[in-house]
Amino acid sequence: MTRALAVVLMSGGMDSCVCAAIAVLECELAALHVTYGQRTADREREAFEAQADHYGVPASRRLVTSLPSLATMGGSALTDPLIPVPEGGLEPEAIPVTYVPFRNAHLLATAVSWAEVLGAQRVVIGAVQDDSSGYPDCRVEFYEAFRRVIEAGTRPETRIAIDTPVIHLSKAEIVRRGIELGAPLELTWSCYQRTDVACGVCDSCRLRLRAFEQAGVRDPVPYASD
Amino acid sequence: MTRALAVVLMSGGMDSCVCAAIAVLECELAALHVTYGQRTADREREAFEAQADHYGVPASRRLVTSLPSLATMGGSALTDPLIPVPEGGLEPEAIPVTYVPFRNAHLLATAVSWAEVLGAQRVVIGAVQDDSSGYPDCRVEFYEAFRRVIEAGTRPETRIAIDTPVIHLSKAEIVRRGIELGAPLELTWSCYQRTDVACGVCDSCRLRLRAFEQAGVRDPVPYASD
Repeated sequence: MTRALAVVLMSGGMDSCVCAAIAVLECELAALHVTYGQRTADREREAFEAQADHYGVPASRRLVTSLPSLATMGGSALTDPLIPVPEGGLEPEAIPVTYVPFRNAHLLATAVSWAEVLGAQRVVIGAVQDDSSGYPDCRVEFYEAFRRVIEAGTRPETRIAIDTPVIHLSKAEIVRRGIELGAPLELTWSCYQRTDVACGVCDSCRLRLRAFEQAGVRDPVPYASD
Repeated sequence: MTRALAVVLMSGGMDSCVCAAIAVLECELAALHVTYGQRTADREREAFEAQADHYGVPASRRLVTSLPSLATMGGSALTDPLIPVPEGGLEPEAIPVTYVPFRNAHLLATAVSWAEVLGAQRVVIGAVQDDSSGYPDCRVEFYEAFRRVIEAGTRPETRIAIDTPVIHLSKAEIVRRGIELGAPLELTWSCYQRTDVACGVCDSCRLRLRAFEQAGVRDPVPYASD
């Protein structure tokens, strides 16, 4: 029996790396990386390529592409150099300034178009709802609604599921699941502002460090404070 | 009272030009043009700028951006030079080879992100369901489903409606409505394959010519056969 083909959105970060490790248990991978003018784009792309190599994804099933519109519009600390990346700690109640307006809709649209061209049956995205960013486009309802958009907006014979395998996991559970599955966490990059070593103080580093601490393992990537 | 702000997706074609003429009755316009590697991109952009000038849209509320991923993926006669644009007449039952997989999801995502950054209350798109292309992402159900995605995937205080003012009109009715409202139809471009004069034989030209004929007016743009 032929294995299903899954388009996996791989940012270079930890959550999507663990999603790839989960998807590869059942599917062939098509690895999709999308840059959108974020500060650490080159470092994230390097992490993506290293992970795609790890999973043995052939060049014909790798796509690196970009969303120039998000950088042009600004409105987020991730894409607008005038808005500083916060280092003051996590405030889970508010929408952070690192929210890139409606970004995950662009990522899903890109993945679904590619899936339709390739004939892939799944799109996999590493959104985390509960123990994470507070971004509205990481919520379960968003993905439920997007499933109906795919049904309505693609060819009648197209069937593409959206998988969000880590959406209900805590960050610590993601670390544990990754280690269980042998996901190459040492090849991932999460820092929002540095590219040589992780800063350790931006929202993304803080979430990651807390997750490894809770999981009781040492984060394999280098930090400024090491 | 301040007028509402509407982000209008303006392709350079006739349907979105008439949408702009409808939107401007009630709203200030923010004009958005998105290229995606289609054959006639430069000509369409020229048409967009001319229409934005006509409607007096200031530079700060014009955005020209691109979706490089759609061209990279191919899968459509509009973006893949290896797939010929059909000239054999209209077949309303099948999905045409000019369908760009899930394209309108990318266009809406772009418009919604910009609307969220600008604080605009509406996104306007010139999709035509009935008397048109047969593209799945032009159907009412697609826009209904996308409204729920916006609600779920943007900031809690964000309220962005999707307007599809011509979705139930026939192409002939769009021409008539455009003429009633003084829409600059002479500044629009619809041809899928030529940029000097319209070819008159691609799907898009055939639909347009039939619409003007049914509306009983002469199409103001030049054709190869003139």
